[in-house]
Amino acid sequence: MQIAILLYDNCTVLDAVGPYQTLGPLPGAETVFVAERPGPVLDDSRSLPLVAESSLTEVTSPDIVVVPGGPEPDLRNETVLDWLRTVDTTSTWTVSVCTGSLLLGAAGLLDGRRATSHWTTLEQLKTFGAEPTRQRVVFDGKYVTAAGVSAGIDMGLTLAGRIAGDEHAQAVQLMIEYDPQPPYDAGSPDKAPAALVELISGVPRPQG
Amino acid sequence: MQIAILLYDNCTVLDAVGPYQTLGPLPGAETVFVAERPGPVLDDSRSLPLVAESSLTEVTSPDIVVVPGGPEPDLRNETVLDWLRTVDTTSTWTVSVCTGSLLLGAAGLLDGRRATSHWTTLEQLKTFGAEPTRQRVVFDGKYVTAAGVSAGIDMGLTLAGRIAGDEHAQAVQLMIEYDPQPPYDAGSPDKAPAALVELISGVPRPQG
Repeated sequence: MQIAILLYDNCTVLDAVGPYQTLGPLPGAETVFVAERPGPVLDDSRSLPLVAESSLTEVTSPDIVVVPGGPEPDLRNETVLDWLRTVDTTSTWTVSVCTGSLLLGAAGLLDGRRATSHWTTLEQLKTFGAEPTRQRVVFDGKYVTAAGVSAGIDMGLTLAGRIAGDEHAQAVQLMIEYDPQPPYDAGSPDKAPAALVELISGVPRPQG
Repeated sequence: MQIAILLYDNCTVLDAVGPYQTLGPLPGAETVFVAERPGPVLDDSRSLPLVAESSLTEVTSPDIVVVPGGPEPDLRNETVLDWLRTVDTTSTWTVSVCTGSLLLGAAGLLDGRRATSHWTTLEQLKTFGAEPTRQRVVFDGKYVTAAGVSAGIDMGLTLAGRIAGDEHAQAVQLMIEYDPQPPYDAGSPDKAPAALVELISGVPRPQG
């Protein structure tokens, strides 16, 4: 089983690493990081170069395709979009984290499907004919989309369970000691202080 | 403010990336990834090279030192241990994730202090005079240790709140949409099925 994780300039590291740590231990899985060109790819905080060992043309039929997000993924990069369309024809699962779903949408893969994204870009999914769905992890056939950044961990564990069973996924959860205890309850726009949501989204939140 | 995140062969990516995504946005912060030698460092799953841009000798007085863990950190690497002792003399915060606390311990920095680690190595902290503390995030003075792998996210948010205030940390949490919803409740040895805990730890869990 091959897992291909796409890297691109300005992607968010945790978007890629959440699925990597949770899907990577699947029995018999080999993970490959791919990018337009092999070599270092700089993340959106510009501090951590991740190295893609393979180019898109070298990875043609992964079983699982993982598309991380970033602040502004290039939705007009036809090289990337063509690759997504191609690998999707044979993938078992095509998945995204955060704004990675916009790339799937721009590639035409989410038309008529339920999908999620980072909360600030959820509505943008409509542009691609998708049905924005405010859930942390959304399954629609073989397409699995996760909400913002850290949701890739929940998505990866959920998908690992579907593929290899509950016990396997629980073992992965226990190994990464994923027993979350955030110090605040501000991780979604429904829960965070309204002023913060407005500040980040630039849009006043409806009252009530 | 400089944040130095240590990388080394076989470290666990998420251990480094959790603090990176949560501490990196601190006002005025610059994050630098350091290793014995600059260049690519391969993680414990052997698939993702991370690039350390600086050598240990180039980073001499970071404000925050972050030490990720890995399956078997080299506790006899005197170059790394010496660096930890040196930077600790001027750091504001010295922090670890997972078995990174064993490195802090081996450097002699946790003697007499409360600390945590990955659940499988918690007791090993006694070797270094530390008091094993089964909590997800443990503060003891300027030393902050986190439990296994994913606990670095909770640690980073908690520390970000201490440094820059609740509102800043909540904004970071909202940006990474950290509203965890794991599909299972198996993320700690107290909650996971006993058979799994035994399988992973190799030690039968006491009943009841």
